[in-house]
Amino acid sequence: MKILIKNGNILTMEQEEVLFGDVGIVDDIITFIGKDEFFQADYVIDAHECMVMPGLVNAHTHSSMTLFRNYADDLLFWDWLEGRILPIEDKLVGADVKIGAKLAIAEMIRSGITTFADMYMFMDDVAQAVAETGIRAHLSRGLTGTDDASREKIGEAKSFYHRWHGTQHDLIRVDFAPHAPYTCDDAFIGYIMEAASGLDTRIHIHLSESRDEVQRSLEQHGATPIAHMRDLGLFDFPTYAAHCVHITDADIQILKENHVSVVNNPGSNLKIANGFAPIKKLFVAGVNVSVATDGAASNNNLNMFEEMALAALINKGVEEDAVVVPAYQALQMGTVNGAMALGREAQIGTLRVGKKADIILVDMHKPHFYPQYNLVSSLVYSAQAGDVKTVLCNGQLLMENYQLTTIDEEKTMREANQAAKRLVGS
Amino acid sequence: MKILIKNGNILTMEQEEVLFGDVGIVDDIITFIGKDEFFQADYVIDAHECMVMPGLVNAHTHSSMTLFRNYADDLLFWDWLEGRILPIEDKLVGADVKIGAKLAIAEMIRSGITTFADMYMFMDDVAQAVAETGIRAHLSRGLTGTDDASREKIGEAKSFYHRWHGTQHDLIRVDFAPHAPYTCDDAFIGYIMEAASGLDTRIHIHLSESRDEVQRSLEQHGATPIAHMRDLGLFDFPTYAAHCVHITDADIQILKENHVSVVNNPGSNLKIANGFAPIKKLFVAGVNVSVATDGAASNNNLNMFEEMALAALINKGVEEDAVVVPAYQALQMGTVNGAMALGREAQIGTLRVGKKADIILVDMHKPHFYPQYNLVSSLVYSAQAGDVKTVLCNGQLLMENYQLTTIDEEKTMREANQAAKRLVGS
Repeated sequence: MKILIKNGNILTMEQEEVLFGDVGIVDDIITFIGKDEFFQADYVIDAHECMVMPGLVNAHTHSSMTLFRNYADDLLFWDWLEGRILPIEDKLVGADVKIGAKLAIAEMIRSGITTFADMYMFMDDVAQAVAETGIRAHLSRGLTGTDDASREKIGEAKSFYHRWHGTQHDLIRVDFAPHAPYTCDDAFIGYIMEAASGLDTRIHIHLSESRDEVQRSLEQHGATPIAHMRDLGLFDFPTYAAHCVHITDADIQILKENHVSVVNNPGSNLKIANGFAPIKKLFVAGVNVSVATDGAASNNNLNMFEEMALAALINKGVEEDAVVVPAYQALQMGTVNGAMALGREAQIGTLRVGKKADIILVDMHKPHFYPQYNLVSSLVYSAQAGDVKTVLCNGQLLMENYQLTTIDEEKTMREANQAAKRLVGS
Repeated sequence: MKILIKNGNILTMEQEEVLFGDVGIVDDIITFIGKDEFFQADYVIDAHECMVMPGLVNAHTHSSMTLFRNYADDLLFWDWLEGRILPIEDKLVGADVKIGAKLAIAEMIRSGITTFADMYMFMDDVAQAVAETGIRAHLSRGLTGTDDASREKIGEAKSFYHRWHGTQHDLIRVDFAPHAPYTCDDAFIGYIMEAASGLDTRIHIHLSESRDEVQRSLEQHGATPIAHMRDLGLFDFPTYAAHCVHITDADIQILKENHVSVVNNPGSNLKIANGFAPIKKLFVAGVNVSVATDGAASNNNLNMFEEMALAALINKGVEEDAVVVPAYQALQMGTVNGAMALGREAQIGTLRVGKKADIILVDMHKPHFYPQYNLVSSLVYSAQAGDVKTVLCNGQLLMENYQLTTIDEEKTMREANQAAKRLVGS
């Protein structure tokens, strides 16, 4: 199958300059960017007035938690978690998790996300949703444990790895997810490392999300969560760490030295009232920082355009410096830096000949994009998720002209409501 | 003309509870909310799966500055203002200002705004744009002056008042706008008060936007900008003050005692790197706080859904308290509190029988609103401006089913690009 994306503005994310021209795709691969008069397309997509850019990479979410969207808001953290989220999570079955993941994937495609990294439970059901919808995903079974009984879940994670890793034309990869230092004891972290050892995998973890967590780690281990994970050897695996809000300069050095990628979640950090991660310091230190939505229960959407805008805006406010996190850097956080976090930068994250065709078209022929001066700024400071018009992942059209092609949206919304009704019922 | 909005979820903003039913409109007035079997409608709007709510009130903007959207980003404040904005503002003519205002109004209607408060120059051209498009507006000629020569502008403002105040079925009202304490000397503020005296008008001003401004005021007057304006007697007029970022507890008391409304501009305050206004303290003190977009040159859109979300999110982060600015309060900031700032609360800001029919329909039948638990949270934490489907102002349809009815959008976008080209040309 040969697809031609024609007459678009093209932001490759290999450079800040916007090009004008075409993109050629053969099967799952980008074969040219610019002009090729000899390219014989089977299918042509008109990109007139659109920005053609890499699909967004949402490197930390809990997709099925869309089921809890707007269910528990404006609450203190423990009221939110113990009073609301945990009791209904307890009732979840695999079918719910699949519906939640599908709803999330519908929303993510609509907002230009072509790759997401997920941490949750019933992961076979999430993998089924991913396989049916054609999106790219790094999936991991969230692992919590402070006793030997919990080791069963690690076996689950390992067999999940063997069932799904590299499947669906490598759209699906499986990572290992010790949930967080405060929910895993040292022995348990050790068991996870043992299970992951020798596998082609990565570690996906929450680190230093709240002040509380850091305080407890200092009391218990005499070390910050980041220093403690380093001491246990976890960072010998390639690691991407969500949040990293309450971190010290020494933590930043550890992240840098161990090539740990930080996944910033500005919306969730604000909503749960954890505060502001030191993004400027992380960039200055040379740490790879991406941006992601976290789950819809603490956000409450999966809108990477909102997260990129937040990253650009709030860091200017915090640093009182309008030059911090300029628009192009925010876009890097949402694309190529996410790809690096997942070890996928050779395949995705930028538009380049030979890379996978994960491409979105943003319709910029709307009042809020006019007049047209700086289209890179427009994407960060003026765009909405709803401006994404067309989405390709691995060369397959997942949305064309605002219509999803692999998901029955009506059915998914209806089933999500039914699942929600059952979960919050008596 | 009798319009029936049928079968919607209704958030009146008179109470947090969402009702289900119809809204009846006769000419410009809401005549019932709920059910009226005897209402004979000339025109029916289907509100199935929509939230029916008051039009949003954008109580501080510079609409024509859409012409500078995405033209000068990620710059230090003085590079932005003196290097980029002032030189092209110098070239503006009335026709440009009208095009910019029209572009802004198209965007504002699309994001559910039915009333805006504008401060700029060539205000007759802005008023023309308002009159042609049918939106509601408080217009004021921005006044800066430190010598007697500037008094001419005050005469302009006064004749503008007499030409336009209360016209277009009272859609247009005219206020007086001393730009800011740092751009108006004491005598000039005095002249403005003299001109406004005895008129049915309000004061629209920027106050304590930056640290610099406050520092200079303390050096020059031995008082904060807010205390200084109080001392000059400015607050004897009903006043709405944009920004109020760098304010003291004493300032907050002055605002409260003088019934000054604060117009918070979170997006602009972040983008220009001024920081975070103490919204929680203002609410605790009982000050009326609304939220607004500021101009598109420092935002870079006119998206009240983004501003309401920012107000709810960033104050939680700043205070490290997830309960601060809950969703309903953010919606109040975007509706009824804005109406109060403009002295319009008897007419607009909530849905109530007898009030003006300024009503929007938000389409909530989209994945990012599912499942449907708390629709009030949904509007703040999950919605996008692009979800606004239908807009009525003063009983007139300004957008129906995503189509603008009073603006030729293609022409406006094209003309905005042409104006921009001329302004940044040699």
